[in-house]
Amino acid sequence: MSISQAVGTWEGTLKAGRGTMKPENGSEIPFSLATRFEGKKGSNPEELIGAALAGCFSMALSLGLEKAGMTPQSIQTSSKVHLDKDGEGFKISRIALSTEVRATGGDQAKFSTVAEDTKRNCPVSKALKGAEIVLDAKLLA
Amino acid sequence: MSISQAVGTWEGTLKAGRGTMKPENGSEIPFSLATRFEGKKGSNPEELIGAALAGCFSMALSLGLEKAGMTPQSIQTSSKVHLDKDGEGFKISRIALSTEVRATGGDQAKFSTVAEDTKRNCPVSKALKGAEIVLDAKLLA
Repeated sequence: MSISQAVGTWEGTLKAGRGTMKPENGSEIPFSLATRFEGKKGSNPEELIGAALAGCFSMALSLGLEKAGMTPQSIQTSSKVHLDKDGEGFKISRIALSTEVRATGGDQAKFSTVAEDTKRNCPVSKALKGAEIVLDAKLLA
Repeated sequence: MSISQAVGTWEGTLKAGRGTMKPENGSEIPFSLATRFEGKKGSNPEELIGAALAGCFSMALSLGLEKAGMTPQSIQTSSKVHLDKDGEGFKISRIALSTEVRATGGDQAKFSTVAEDTKRNCPVSKALKGAEIVLDAKLLA
């Protein structure tokens, strides 16, 4: 139905090299071994995975709330992507989402049901089947 | 071992609203229903998924080639992320990677084996278990 494009590069060896990530309609994002694994300030693929999931979840939650008879006003979702050792390599073991939502027309119980359903069924969540996704969802007063 | 952060937002309803995606160490990327589903120029979560996978794959391939006794010089990987209908919703059905690599010290057969292994085992690939990932890998002369 739709096809989205991006490019990733790596120059040189793992330790001495460096990479870039470029969504077709976004800025080029540099990364390196140090920004991914050694705590140096800078981006990495996990930040983009977290941004994609937080964006997809937020968009899908607006639709879910509407379908449940609520009126979404603003949704802000933060993500923390955990990268852990996995044998000789690494894996994204867990993604923690935390969302704060302003919406009218429903109570906390209805909101929580919709939020959990969105966590399971938004397109990016369904793609990320290899990682555990957990959600903390707050309906603000 | 490491935790990466990002934020996603959505303001308003699905149709009239708009969203942002912000990797902690990257620029804010706006998106909307039109840039995600209606072909309007702009980004969307799928572009970030593709950028993350292309970057992770390229970085991991440099390590894989080194382990196989080759010397990686430059790796450029493009991704196409396919979003398709899935019942009442959507899913990321397929991600096509295409990589072009300059490296010395090995032949096409060794290179192809390492590239396929990297496609299966890089951290972002392992997280994206819900999508089929296919790879076209070229070792440049």
